[in-house]
Amino acid sequence: MASKLTSREADYSRWYNELVVQADLAQHSDVKGCMVIKPYGFAIWERMKDVLDGMFKETGHVNAYFPLFIPKSYFSKEADHVEGFAKECAVVTHYRLMNDPDGNGVVVDPSAKLEEELIVRPTSETIIWHTYKGWVQSYRDLPLLINQWANVVRWEMRTRLFLRTSEFLWQEGHTAHETSSEAVEEARRMLEVYADFAEQWMAMPVLKGLKSANERFAGALDTYCIEAMMQDGKALQAGTSHFLGQNFAKAFDVKFATRDGGQEHVWATSWGVSTRLMGALIMTHSDDAGLVLPPKLAPIEVVLVPIYKGPEQMEEIVAALKAIADQLKVAGIRVKLDDDDSKRSGWKFAEYELKGVPVRLAMGPRDLTGGTIEVARRDTQTKSFEQAEGIVGHVQNLLEEIQKNLFARSAERTSSTTRSVDTWEDFLEALDAGGFVSAHWDGTPETEEWIKQQTKATIRCIPLDAPEEAGTCIKTGAPSSRRVIFARAY
Amino acid sequence: MASKLTSREADYSRWYNELVVQADLAQHSDVKGCMVIKPYGFAIWERMKDVLDGMFKETGHVNAYFPLFIPKSYFSKEADHVEGFAKECAVVTHYRLMNDPDGNGVVVDPSAKLEEELIVRPTSETIIWHTYKGWVQSYRDLPLLINQWANVVRWEMRTRLFLRTSEFLWQEGHTAHETSSEAVEEARRMLEVYADFAEQWMAMPVLKGLKSANERFAGALDTYCIEAMMQDGKALQAGTSHFLGQNFAKAFDVKFATRDGGQEHVWATSWGVSTRLMGALIMTHSDDAGLVLPPKLAPIEVVLVPIYKGPEQMEEIVAALKAIADQLKVAGIRVKLDDDDSKRSGWKFAEYELKGVPVRLAMGPRDLTGGTIEVARRDTQTKSFEQAEGIVGHVQNLLEEIQKNLFARSAERTSSTTRSVDTWEDFLEALDAGGFVSAHWDGTPETEEWIKQQTKATIRCIPLDAPEEAGTCIKTGAPSSRRVIFARAY
Repeated sequence: MASKLTSREADYSRWYNELVVQADLAQHSDVKGCMVIKPYGFAIWERMKDVLDGMFKETGHVNAYFPLFIPKSYFSKEADHVEGFAKECAVVTHYRLMNDPDGNGVVVDPSAKLEEELIVRPTSETIIWHTYKGWVQSYRDLPLLINQWANVVRWEMRTRLFLRTSEFLWQEGHTAHETSSEAVEEARRMLEVYADFAEQWMAMPVLKGLKSANERFAGALDTYCIEAMMQDGKALQAGTSHFLGQNFAKAFDVKFATRDGGQEHVWATSWGVSTRLMGALIMTHSDDAGLVLPPKLAPIEVVLVPIYKGPEQMEEIVAALKAIADQLKVAGIRVKLDDDDSKRSGWKFAEYELKGVPVRLAMGPRDLTGGTIEVARRDTQTKSFEQAEGIVGHVQNLLEEIQKNLFARSAERTSSTTRSVDTWEDFLEALDAGGFVSAHWDGTPETEEWIKQQTKATIRCIPLDAPEEAGTCIKTGAPSSRRVIFARAY
Repeated sequence: MASKLTSREADYSRWYNELVVQADLAQHSDVKGCMVIKPYGFAIWERMKDVLDGMFKETGHVNAYFPLFIPKSYFSKEADHVEGFAKECAVVTHYRLMNDPDGNGVVVDPSAKLEEELIVRPTSETIIWHTYKGWVQSYRDLPLLINQWANVVRWEMRTRLFLRTSEFLWQEGHTAHETSSEAVEEARRMLEVYADFAEQWMAMPVLKGLKSANERFAGALDTYCIEAMMQDGKALQAGTSHFLGQNFAKAFDVKFATRDGGQEHVWATSWGVSTRLMGALIMTHSDDAGLVLPPKLAPIEVVLVPIYKGPEQMEEIVAALKAIADQLKVAGIRVKLDDDDSKRSGWKFAEYELKGVPVRLAMGPRDLTGGTIEVARRDTQTKSFEQAEGIVGHVQNLLEEIQKNLFARSAERTSSTTRSVDTWEDFLEALDAGGFVSAHWDGTPETEEWIKQQTKATIRCIPLDAPEEAGTCIKTGAPSSRRVIFARAY
């Protein structure tokens, strides 16, 4: 059994770390920066993956698989990309171990050195575009709409479970198009898919926007993103979708025969979300008692706990709960009946609270006699007694209500901490209060960088729906035509 | 469009290589031994994965994820395991690249050398048992029934798509139990799951048995396996399930408090199947015209092709086929209507034949008038004309029949090429004819090794259901109490 969590107020960062471990979501491994995703955490990720995969397929994408290893030289082909990605990475230099001649276990066999080092993929643009060269000859081969679910590695010195790990799991879409506008349309379509997923499934409101040049993906012309606001006032980038122009097609010489008989380089996008979403989900909804999960992504939506003294009571109550559990299952609800006799009901209550199960049904001897059942909801931590008869309909409605409430609660929090400011002083004050800060910026990388150095705040995005509005940069006073969103971020 | 395949008779190995590439299943990458699994091939693997994952969950297993990298020293802890697995592997020695001081792209940063080298997992027993140490304290924590879907790397010099690649995809189950008998039961249960999957879904008959000591998994006490017979007379190991005893628990010091208050090491199993199953599927059913897929695993079960001259005919016929396609979808059948006007129907026929789509429906102007439809089945390459009315029921029955026919056909082939022999001469003759050879063996690793050196045949398994039968070893004449199965193998 887990010990009590540090409160968010006392130490938000420690609260997060304790929660991830105690709720059985993940743990650090002995391998620097690599995590173990535990079964309960993985079950949540599996739900996310299944839903997203369905959304990708609905929008015409198919899955494939590309090699884990990328020859070092591929990274030299796209100049920006190499700067962004090839630096902190895992490098394979040898392909064999041998028994230590001195008898100390195994050592690297010096004779098994690779001619060219291999990089464990930090992202797969290079190897995929190298492959696409063989797949695309004519406009008839386009578009290519391909996604990959994979593990990737970006060496990190300071890691946090789910938020920043050397190895993480993700999906990466890589598409190839005939025209620039089709590619832009694709990048924006996938941004909408991500935003829908975040809002409809994770119950997490997001801002949609463009990254500034400083924050753009290495090798992209435009990076679209969704940004979410966590409970501690820091933003989290939850997904990105890139318009890559012809950069990778040029780097890997991928041309196609156009409709009018010419030859042109292909237009590209890439887009991805990762196990980082687990961190976003946790930090958006959870509280001092533990994890809070939106029903649509909860591995267990409803847990049923019997309360009894002695084996005879137990048998009757468990039978009654089993009948209800079966009805809930028929209605398509993911349920667990916890009839483990070795643990007390109080222990179970705390355990499922910690694990964020949205609804708990409990039944004791008096309920059995009276035909009632106790219904506890995790989001509000409130309880009610309901008639056991017809409980399925009640639970269905309640799950929908919880899903909506979680979204409404986060949306309210996000909007109430989003501040529009016009002066440097107000900007600093708003940043310290936490939340998104909407402000005018002169559009230069220098100003953005200066602000980052001074305040640790970055431009999270240039909102897609921001109206034109004349103003002056909070720092330089230079004219600006629209506000951008700043925040400190994960 | 693909060119004609080499026939199986002319060159089986070339036929296989051409088929894998031309049917868009996979291709070699520039990275030695690593393959690209193309969307069509990946769709088949995805179906396999979904079905197997469901079977694992039905039997009480959950998924988790463990790190890609394993510290080198972990491999020294289980003596047999290190011999078997730590040798041909990818070794990560550095974690950073830098710009080449001489201006030639990027080079490894010599200052970023890891203190301890990391091995890209060839299998995960070591890191998982290292982790289980923290998860198991008492018998109440047992059993642990965990599976992982992952990529693994075993360095290979001679590779073949799906059959032997340096990187491959697989699942690996790793379970921990209170008693030896529970662990054995688990290993055998998962063998049954694999056999069911092979026979019911892949339509591939398998022998179930135990491996001899020489062929056992490195670190196991017993290795159970399923073995299938390919069309060229060579066997293929399609899945293994290992009873690991307490070897890994001892190596990683995983003990539990027993029911009677003692301390004991945990009992273990591991079991896995990989993308090698794709190779088995291809070689079991396919023919000189291309891939043949069992309907239950086919990404497309039914393709509908219109035959027409001119746009007016086209519109009517496509509309009629669309109505049928919709009905088939409602019946839960995976269909594709190919109304691409840029390709001729003859081209499409050849293409879907090559890709192994089990049933093709074609409709021309005369069919439209007469209310008929042409039905072609891939397994027998036969055609019939059916009433378009009620075609859904006909197709449903046909898909079931094809699934059964494929199994029956492979079972007939396997049994007709399985020979029971009693002399060394007959043994050699049977091996050269191809197929499984059932023979007496004196039970010694030396004899097995000698036979392997002389004939390239190995003991595929000691069948689980083999009756006791007194005999003498085909090689040494020493007494033997049961027959074992030899074959040349992939």
